[in-house]
Amino acid sequence: MYDRIKGFRDFYPGEMAARREAIDVLEDTAREYGFREIGTPALERAEMWTDKSGDDIVDELYAFEDQSGRHVTLTPELTPTVARMVVAKQQELSKPIKWVSTRPFWRYEQVQQGRYREFYQTNVDIFGSSEPTADAEILAWAADALTGLGLTGDHFEFRISHRDILGGVLESYDTEVDTEAAIRAVDKSDKLSRAEYHDLLIGAGLSADQAAEFGDLIAGGDLEEVEAFAGTERVTAAVENLQNVLDAAEDFGAREYCTISLETARGLDYYTGVVFECFDSAGEVSRSIFGGGRYDDLIESFGGQPTPAVGVAPGHATLALLCQRAGVWPEEDVTTDYYVLQIGDTRAEAARIVGELRDRGHVVETDIAGRSFGAQLDYADSINAETVVIVGEQDLENDEVTIKDMESGDQTQVPVDEFPGDRERPTFEDLA
Amino acid sequence: MYDRIKGFRDFYPGEMAARREAIDVLEDTAREYGFREIGTPALERAEMWTDKSGDDIVDELYAFEDQSGRHVTLTPELTPTVARMVVAKQQELSKPIKWVSTRPFWRYEQVQQGRYREFYQTNVDIFGSSEPTADAEILAWAADALTGLGLTGDHFEFRISHRDILGGVLESYDTEVDTEAAIRAVDKSDKLSRAEYHDLLIGAGLSADQAAEFGDLIAGGDLEEVEAFAGTERVTAAVENLQNVLDAAEDFGAREYCTISLETARGLDYYTGVVFECFDSAGEVSRSIFGGGRYDDLIESFGGQPTPAVGVAPGHATLALLCQRAGVWPEEDVTTDYYVLQIGDTRAEAARIVGELRDRGHVVETDIAGRSFGAQLDYADSINAETVVIVGEQDLENDEVTIKDMESGDQTQVPVDEFPGDRERPTFEDLA
Repeated sequence: MYDRIKGFRDFYPGEMAARREAIDVLEDTAREYGFREIGTPALERAEMWTDKSGDDIVDELYAFEDQSGRHVTLTPELTPTVARMVVAKQQELSKPIKWVSTRPFWRYEQVQQGRYREFYQTNVDIFGSSEPTADAEILAWAADALTGLGLTGDHFEFRISHRDILGGVLESYDTEVDTEAAIRAVDKSDKLSRAEYHDLLIGAGLSADQAAEFGDLIAGGDLEEVEAFAGTERVTAAVENLQNVLDAAEDFGAREYCTISLETARGLDYYTGVVFECFDSAGEVSRSIFGGGRYDDLIESFGGQPTPAVGVAPGHATLALLCQRAGVWPEEDVTTDYYVLQIGDTRAEAARIVGELRDRGHVVETDIAGRSFGAQLDYADSINAETVVIVGEQDLENDEVTIKDMESGDQTQVPVDEFPGDRERPTFEDLA
Repeated sequence: MYDRIKGFRDFYPGEMAARREAIDVLEDTAREYGFREIGTPALERAEMWTDKSGDDIVDELYAFEDQSGRHVTLTPELTPTVARMVVAKQQELSKPIKWVSTRPFWRYEQVQQGRYREFYQTNVDIFGSSEPTADAEILAWAADALTGLGLTGDHFEFRISHRDILGGVLESYDTEVDTEAAIRAVDKSDKLSRAEYHDLLIGAGLSADQAAEFGDLIAGGDLEEVEAFAGTERVTAAVENLQNVLDAAEDFGAREYCTISLETARGLDYYTGVVFECFDSAGEVSRSIFGGGRYDDLIESFGGQPTPAVGVAPGHATLALLCQRAGVWPEEDVTTDYYVLQIGDTRAEAARIVGELRDRGHVVETDIAGRSFGAQLDYADSINAETVVIVGEQDLENDEVTIKDMESGDQTQVPVDEFPGDRERPTFEDLA
């Protein structure tokens, strides 16, 4: 009768179980790194995005007026919200501030594989450190999270660059260059023909010769060559910063996943330093899986004290695609440790066993539908129950219950007052 | 510069840590019961609420037109969404369907203590069983979740009733009674004077004498008396069903928390059988903490096959109030197992120790801000680090690191190549 809105998804238990397993890896890894979970609102004032005109995001906002006439929007990303939160408690928060959160965001955009209008991200950010070790910790978390999912260096790479390298090289030209337009051109270059790419660079203010020269220099990705070409302190400092980040990443075990790629520019204007994107090494997922980088000016632009910041936000949909193609996505199915089957009026005894098994943390179901033996067994099978505990009136007369292994079909009887007894996770194997 | 929208909350790490601990109890308990997590959209078609006119919820919707002119709304509750999802896959889902999810909902209503415009609930529902054991399992989950939070029968009670008792008694009058209006009057009765209450009942079609009689009968709560008064099969069946639910709750360990209270009616019209509300036994939280019940007709009204259903949805804000007043709300602070302090150029060795401790699942931070010894120690203190591992250049020359207990201030030195070694969670106590 009612249908779901286009670009929004329902996750049924099997798919959700796989997603939860993946999210747990991202969050547990963040927890071990000392990132602290925060909770953030779904709605913010639309001005947080519309004040800064020219951003593609503005056209994609689910914005509306609330019943008091506030211009509000479903948040399309987390960064402005965390910036607002940092500004609001700037004095009391001990720095570095290390925050993590997993939640949906919303953008009205074209729906395609791995892209939805409601999409989930795990955002990980550090505020209050300009040190290369902070950038490297973000890279290390991302690498640990991906390897925790079962991915390896054969599956993903971080293409890493520095905003000031592109900006500094462009600045070194005599001509007036629209740096942001040129950086956007670089960001799109892998989707453009050489001629189209050069046309965009020319549109940004370079001559035809300069466009070709710049394109080749950036594609080459040789840091020494780039530094010599620009000959400016800004580019020299950026190259040094990038090297320092990579050195720290080496200590943190993440260097092996990083490739210097000066064509990695990130579309968003707020990045100021190191930027990186995660790609499928095999090239099967053609778009960037996710990206991140340093954004040292944002907090100040939100009215706060100058506060350096660096972060990353893996989106779950593209990450799932990568994991699926690498064969490491968790199985999309529910699991059940025990089904306690009742025959006749054995509910009280069954409930005791159910309770004791649940107290041990196991997933335990029992009959709540008044079903026959066969219907209960079918149901136990449908929820992938590993062990069925059969509590029958006749067995109970002999003070016994039957333990059935669902994979083999084997079963054995045990004294009811010894089940589960002091066993943490009794199975057919233990009891036979 | 930007402020948060009224009725929406930011959760900083301390408060969020306490909330997460509480949510984990609700969700882990549901997992042990075999409730399967689902994921659901924040937006639905507004018609899912507006088609059914007269509901208070409609005035509180955050509804708007999306960029394609769809009438959409931020979802104010989960039940219609799960009903839609059940209908969409009715054939393939094995029954009983047992679902759980935790997420925010949105209603434009008056903000007050424990009530926000963005509010979080854990929804737990069973579809496909009309058995009293299903109702009892919902009660048992709720009781286990609350006792898992540290609450006891001194803190909370479930006031339980049955829609057909009120409906059946009202039906037994000769006069034409607006049953839904009378039930809403009962639902509000504890906030009204006796005269106001009776006026509402008279407005619903009872005479003054009948209103007084009905009010006393319901307030009395004697099931036998009510059954005799009505003398209809409907009321007799409802009383029997309620007794059966309580009998099953006895087997499941939840009976002791249940009080029969025929004035418990639940405001929502879709309830059809047993309904219940959780109250603060001490009466300090005056409103209902949360409620639930049976809604057997909803799936069919959404175009599905007739499918009985029962569920409950604890809201986290009122639950937190109850826990706080009972003194069992988790501490609102972050915890840290280890801070690995670097003195001089010891990053590589510190990173090895950090990595090994994180591999064991511990929360471990280290310097990512280039700080002095004192500043690092202050930071370690601010994040409540239990143990500080000092990796100093001089110590390392002697192949040692220093282990400092932050509570006592005591410290000891251990060989660096034996730390953490094969210890799972080395502390000062173990090493001194």
